Amino acid sequence: MKISYPFILVNFKIYKEALGERAVTLAKTAEKVSSETGVCIGVAPCSADLLRVTSSTSIPVFAQHIDPQPPGAHTGHLPAEAVKLAGAIGTILNHSENRLRVDIIDDCINRARDVGLVTCVCSNNPSVSKAIAALSPDMVAVEPPELIGTGIPVSKAKPTVITDTVEAVTAVNSKVAVLCGAGITRGEDVARAIELGSQGVLVASGVVKAKDPEAVLREFAEACLKAST
Amino acid sequence: MKISYPFILVNFKIYKEALGERAVTLAKTAEKVSSETGVCIGVAPCSADLLRVTSSTSIPVFAQHIDPQPPGAHTGHLPAEAVKLAGAIGTILNHSENRLRVDIIDDCINRARDVGLVTCVCSNNPSVSKAIAALSPDMVAVEPPELIGTGIPVSKAKPTVITDTVEAVTAVNSKVAVLCGAGITRGEDVARAIELGSQGVLVASGVVKAKDPEAVLREFAEACLKAST
Amino acid sequence: MKISYPFILVNFKIYKEALGERAVTLAKTAEKVSSETGVCIGVAPCSADLLRVTSSTSIPVFAQHIDPQPPGAHTGHLPAEAVKLAGAIGTILNHSENRLRVDIIDDCINRARDVGLVTCVCSNNPSVSKAIAALSPDMVAVEPPELIGTGIPVSKAKPTVITDTVEAVTAVNSKVAVLCGAGITRGEDVARAIELGSQGVLVASGVVKAKDPEAVLREFAEACLKAST
Amino acid sequence: MKISYPFILVNFKIYKEALGERAVTLAKTAEKVSSETGVCIGVAPCSADLLRVTSSTSIPVFAQHIDPQPPGAHTGHLPAEAVKLAGAIGTILNHSENRLRVDIIDDCINRARDVGLVTCVCSNNPSVSKAIAALSPDMVAVEPPELIGTGIPVSKAKPTVITDTVEAVTAVNSKVAVLCGAGITRGEDVARAIELGSQGVLVASGVVKAKDPEAVLREFAEACLKAST
Repeated sequence: MKISYPFILVNFKIYKEALGERAVTLAKTAEKVSSETGVCIGVAPCSADLLRVTSSTSIPVFAQHIDPQPPGAHTGHLPAEAVKLAGAIGTILNHSENRLRVDIIDDCINRARDVGLVTCVCSNNPSVSKAIAALSPDMVAVEPPELIGTGIPVSKAKPTVITDTVEAVTAVNSKVAVLCGAGITRGEDVARAIELGSQGVLVASGVVKAKDPEAVLREFAEACLKAST
Repeated sequence: MKISYPFILVNFKIYKEALGERAVTLAKTAEKVSSETGVCIGVAPCSADLLRVTSSTSIPVFAQHIDPQPPGAHTGHLPAEAVKLAGAIGTILNHSENRLRVDIIDDCINRARDVGLVTCVCSNNPSVSKAIAALSPDMVAVEPPELIGTGIPVSKAKPTVITDTVEAVTAVNSKVAVLCGAGITRGEDVARAIELGSQGVLVASGVVKAKDPEAVLREFAEACLKAST
Repeated sequence: MKISYPFILVNFKIYKEALGERAVTLAKTAEKVSSETGVCIGVAPCSADLLRVTSSTSIPVFAQHIDPQPPGAHTGHLPAEAVKLAGAIGTILNHSENRLRVDIIDDCINRARDVGLVTCVCSNNPSVSKAIAALSPDMVAVEPPELIGTGIPVSKAKPTVITDTVEAVTAVNSKVAVLCGAGITRGEDVARAIELGSQGVLVASGVVKAKDPEAVLREFAEACLKAST
Repeated sequence: MKISYPFILVNFKIYKEALGERAVTLAKTAEKVSSETGVCIGVAPCSADLLRVTSSTSIPVFAQHIDPQPPGAHTGHLPAEAVKLAGAIGTILNHSENRLRVDIIDDCINRARDVGLVTCVCSNNPSVSKAIAALSPDMVAVEPPELIGTGIPVSKAKPTVITDTVEAVTAVNSKVAVLCGAGITRGEDVARAIELGSQGVLVASGVVKAKDPEAVLREFAEACLKAST
């Protein structure tokens, strides 16, 4: 399973609307929209729900976090191997709700690569995006923390965060894809994000807490198609 | 599903011998021994493996950790609800490889109780055991960290850690069961632990990394039976 | 230098009004009021200001935190020894802005005792107060976090937090003194706190950010005198 | 006070040999050697000792760590302002004994710059060095953690860690100076470090725990002079 860009990654967080069997329902919705539009959509459920999502769908499934520890005596941690065995193909790292030490991001990216997981590492601004790009993840997802969950889209409120991140990341490592996120609720927010140079979006409440997640995802996917032609 | 005492709780940690499908195999072994001996045996697999274990066995399954956050915008965290939805009936907390703030232990115990999960909170010595008992978990599991994984049994090397913990915990809250652990690899270690007043054991490498986990678990279960009559 | 009760402990936090030489000015004000009223008043400046405060005043000076590490290779940590060498006689621990693991609170209390520092350990509610009392600090200071810095006094808004803490702490270890804090800005808040069974108050913004800290401290000290007769 | 290169920065950690008045003695020794050789030597004492060192010597004094919080309600934290008011001119950050989140390193560098403190940010390998360089500190100090305190010098055991770091850092931001450290106990280790392209060394036990710190520092300083001509 390969990621193609533009890429929409839906972070389920631990919203009650996306726990347990609801995670499967939402993932199936994402799969349907992806299949119908041809836009690559991934989902990132809670660690306890990875298996039920991967065994019910065939879209890219990400963990929301992994720990740097290899298999061994590390009670309560989540190694790359466990995520891989649960069928995930990648992991988010360093989300604003789960920030990591710089050396641990480096370790986690290496461990993920060793077991064959794709990494999407979050950052809060262009300079941190640049720092993370130096660690060679597959994707950097820049999200101004103050906009997360607000419905005020980063692509409108802080467009230079996106353009500066694209420039900084490209300068350090041109193989790293740039996603952006925070406050994205409409197709036009997604289109604008892609026009500004990002290769996709990291979204959460805009989809998970929407009244009609399918309609929102379809709007996002269609915006991706339009913006990237 | 109810816990009965003496209770053997097998912490799978993130040992490679107990990740993915191997978690199921080991849990089935525990189930077989429990069923044949009548001794209550629980297992605590990695969060990503909870669902596959609970859907393949009917013994008590514990998470190795939960986070205090309720469902919501908390990327990468593991709420009590997710563990419950994955079929677990309890959780370990504050393991020496995953220590927690005192206020967070309090929060986690309350959250676990709210969703109907049993709590087994680890401690490193009698005074911390007493502190934890004041927070009213279901079980306190005392484990001198320096003995964990060594094969030097707490019940032999530091018997007063067990007796002092039993006394301290009982003084604060007599409803809290006391388990002990660290270095337990033989039936006689288990028997001694119970004779010293504990109501069971928390074990990990002694079972998970044993050449013949079934034989070890059987020896443990039989020691429980003998020691408690 | 001994603490006597009722005790007023002024946490300078890292308020700009109490950094550098301003820490000395505020400590001298506290010393003056203490000397004139006979009520014991302690101050807790930033670690970098301990020495300048202890060398300019003779009231009890507390650190706001210590780390559990003994002297050795622990860059950036603050051992009990350093605080003692800087002339402090005690330390706050586990403040709501700096919560600690339960085993680390235990370690810090032991390390503080070993070098001769008094400990005042904060808690957020009666059950955590009870847990901390089991670790035998000199004082527990209960502060509902949601009231800290609000000006809504714990002694008025949540009197049972104080009475329940006094009861729980006394049941576990009657030698532990109970302070309370959060939202205390007037003498009557202090008086009420003492009438409810506490042996003093932990205050911060109510004094540090007051227009006239001397007047506020005098009001607090006089309330202590009235309430304890 | 300005840093000049080659630069020797002596991290006092919390070694008992460098706490309290002993910090002053050691700093005076460093000052003497610096004055006699003309090589810039800085010292980094414990936060509680900053003031006594800065008020007794005139060499560059660094904190071992700062916290990202600005002045305000942050009990037990160490803001850049407090370090500055204590007379320090810079701070170490992200030492292997005190690692930080990537966003917090970014915040701390910005806060340090705002109050006029120089930053020396530690890293564990070339890729993390590159990441940190992207955050524009004044110095990056690369130290393989496994060599710290061993007496096996990085410049001999892992020379490519130094050359790769110099190359990576220069590519990202040529204004960032590169120091190196770990296992450095002799003049030849220092000379080799500088020949490999670093602009100085971060040392700790090699000086602090030496029988004759003055002789060691003199050997280091003379090696700097020779290697940089």
